[in-house]
Amino acid sequence: MARPRTQDPDELFALAREGDRLALARMLSIVERGGDPARAVGRLVHAHAGAVATVGITGAPGAGKSTLTSALIAQMRADDERVAVLAIDPSSPFTGGAILGDRVRMGDHATDDGVFIRSMATRGHLGGLALATPEAVRVLGAVGFPWIVIETVGVGQVEVEVAGATDTRVVVLNPGWGDAVQANKAGLMEIADVFVINKADRPGVSEAVRDVEQMLELGADRAWRPPVLTTVGTTGAGVTELWGAIRDHREAARASGELADRTAARQADELHRIVAERLLARARELGGGPRFDELLGAVAQRRLDPWSAADQLLGGEA
Amino acid sequence: MARPRTQDPDELFALAREGDRLALARMLSIVERGGDPARAVGRLVHAHAGAVATVGITGAPGAGKSTLTSALIAQMRADDERVAVLAIDPSSPFTGGAILGDRVRMGDHATDDGVFIRSMATRGHLGGLALATPEAVRVLGAVGFPWIVIETVGVGQVEVEVAGATDTRVVVLNPGWGDAVQANKAGLMEIADVFVINKADRPGVSEAVRDVEQMLELGADRAWRPPVLTTVGTTGAGVTELWGAIRDHREAARASGELADRTAARQADELHRIVAERLLARARELGGGPRFDELLGAVAQRRLDPWSAADQLLGGEA
Repeated sequence: MARPRTQDPDELFALAREGDRLALARMLSIVERGGDPARAVGRLVHAHAGAVATVGITGAPGAGKSTLTSALIAQMRADDERVAVLAIDPSSPFTGGAILGDRVRMGDHATDDGVFIRSMATRGHLGGLALATPEAVRVLGAVGFPWIVIETVGVGQVEVEVAGATDTRVVVLNPGWGDAVQANKAGLMEIADVFVINKADRPGVSEAVRDVEQMLELGADRAWRPPVLTTVGTTGAGVTELWGAIRDHREAARASGELADRTAARQADELHRIVAERLLARARELGGGPRFDELLGAVAQRRLDPWSAADQLLGGEA
Repeated sequence: MARPRTQDPDELFALAREGDRLALARMLSIVERGGDPARAVGRLVHAHAGAVATVGITGAPGAGKSTLTSALIAQMRADDERVAVLAIDPSSPFTGGAILGDRVRMGDHATDDGVFIRSMATRGHLGGLALATPEAVRVLGAVGFPWIVIETVGVGQVEVEVAGATDTRVVVLNPGWGDAVQANKAGLMEIADVFVINKADRPGVSEAVRDVEQMLELGADRAWRPPVLTTVGTTGAGVTELWGAIRDHREAARASGELADRTAARQADELHRIVAERLLARARELGGGPRFDELLGAVAQRRLDPWSAADQLLGGEA
């Protein structure tokens, strides 16, 4: 298949819906870069984006998230579910595929038309990831992937937010003491719907399970109590149960209304962010003028603190 | 020393300048929480914030940053330099001190008045860390810490930005192949002024050094070529050289004008962010009204894409 030369959103979308993976990849690149071309793609797919199920897989670097994701995909494919993966983890072999060829275990799924894997850059414009991810999810939904797995490293502020903005949130820990404590500090315990102790062929599994259970005891009562599963990503042990837990959570969340609540909260959050992004563009305009330079000079000379400078710059505007 | 009951910025500042560490800690808590009280602290310290030297220490979780920082502090103290540490790393034992008491190696410096250590939360309001960190640096400078070490985990978008906003940026890697590749993907290679291969008592040191040197060959020519050092944080081996390299870089950057350029760029970036934060407050106001709810309903029903909804909400405003 020849690489599509077109950058026209309508043509790319038509090609992508026919299964052209390069056209799909190009649409996602446009979304990732942001700006007016991304808006054109967004307007186009919005009406076609069906109901998708999103699964967030997060945890510290080295927790084995990518291997586990690959094993999970195999389970999903065994049930004939089409699935796309967005990898937002600089330590993921998916993200690093181009450089770390031999580490790309996703090669297992490379020839499967029912699987699409894409890395998203964690750098770029402020708030870029938080805005580009829901748009990318809509693109994937509109071209026919009802399941979307979002793999993020659960360490940074933006990355935890992105992982949190999914229907079912899987937090991956490893055996031994302390991992659950770190996850708690990173804000992962409160977003988890399913816990996985991966690499469960190593010592310390029962301690890790106990740590998580104790934290769950201390936490707020929720209608859904997150199960604590054990898996070995490299062998696939426990991954059937993980896939079952994801579907169970989805069903329970649908029945309780939690799924609808989360969808509504995500839509409101996204609209807030977009309004903010539009205002930021205005801020960048203000940041280019002579008045900005004048006030910046006053800050540099310590005649003015930066918040007072901002207030003077904005005047009655905000 | 009794815990100061006051929340009055003037009183806290006067106490902190006399060496009251609890008053200083309270000022930093106010800065961290943001809002009007933080602005009051900011206005107060701005005029008093002397020229401080900031050192960013970043790298993946588990790279040994905290142990290395502790050893570096010992070197700085041997030269009679007063130093404050801001730890912005959910996996840092500094940050986790309250939970992981036995892991707090910083206990070495607990009774030293010339050392102040403070963790900063990575969660909170959008952009909070990027705005609170320079304010915290000014507070520490104003109460008499000329050296400020900022330890961040080099994985998340915000965290890499915070590490980048320092005068001298130390990137900590570990022996073996691949770490440099990951660091490159996270955007760390381009911000590094000094590379450290820590845990250099393990195998693979020469491979790691070679990886970094090769990446430096490929990179842009800069007036300062980052040295690649080897250290063992737990024994202190190589840390004298690290302290020397930090001072060398500072001197070279001062001579070349790079230090002044970075300071100016940071001040402009901070003023941009504050203007943006002020406009965000305006966005939150807009997000509370009936028009917002109406447009959000149209998005939920797929009658409108969210960017078009934002444009309608803002009207002629942005």
